[in-house]
Amino acid sequence: MKVFDYTEIPAQEAEEGAKDVTVRWLITKDTGAPNFAMRLFEMKVSGYSPFHTHDWEHEVFILDGEGIVRSEQGDFPFKPGSVVFVPPNEMHQFRNTGKTLVRFLCLIPFKK
Amino acid sequence: MKVFDYTEIPAQEAEEGAKDVTVRWLITKDTGAPNFAMRLFEMKVSGYSPFHTHDWEHEVFILDGEGIVRSEQGDFPFKPGSVVFVPPNEMHQFRNTGKTLVRFLCLIPFKK
Repeated sequence: MKVFDYTEIPAQEAEEGAKDVTVRWLITKDTGAPNFAMRLFEMKVSGYSPFHTHDWEHEVFILDGEGIVRSEQGDFPFKPGSVVFVPPNEMHQFRNTGKTLVRFLCLIPFKK
Repeated sequence: MKVFDYTEIPAQEAEEGAKDVTVRWLITKDTGAPNFAMRLFEMKVSGYSPFHTHDWEHEVFILDGEGIVRSEQGDFPFKPGSVVFVPPNEMHQFRNTGKTLVRFLCLIPFKK
């Protein structure tokens, strides 16, 4: 068993195409996880992730802040306590449209 | 894509052996998830989950409240922002030893 504070994991710059976003890989294969990874993203005011797609899903829980998830079906607002499920192969982008830091968990499966 | 508030999912009594614990199954196969489920637990003051084991892992993030995770290696304290990884086949129990409601996310893989 491993128990630690999320701030013990360093924040790294997020992927190319993101603006003002960092990611902490909280639980990974190195932790011993067999199936999926837990990450915590922090997105500054006006920050965003790329509008993109990939063949794996996202399971997201919003911890702090407000914004929108952009999709091909339009924009969905989020706030603390929002749950977001993005299926594989669906275009998506997270945007901080509020006035405070956005923090959310985003879990993804390991690639087979 | 699905975006909703966690309170839209009803809280159910948790499993046998738990005391004062409810669970909301936020993301499941019915949501369209292919690999793993997201659940949110609420544990009242002095509540606990059973001290038990199973052949799947837990990936946990503490949202609110304070308590301990009991294991065969001793007790680990947790607080908001704590991350808990419980590997498959390891004994574990969550206990609310604080003075406020404990809320945490606990994600598990679907059984093959």
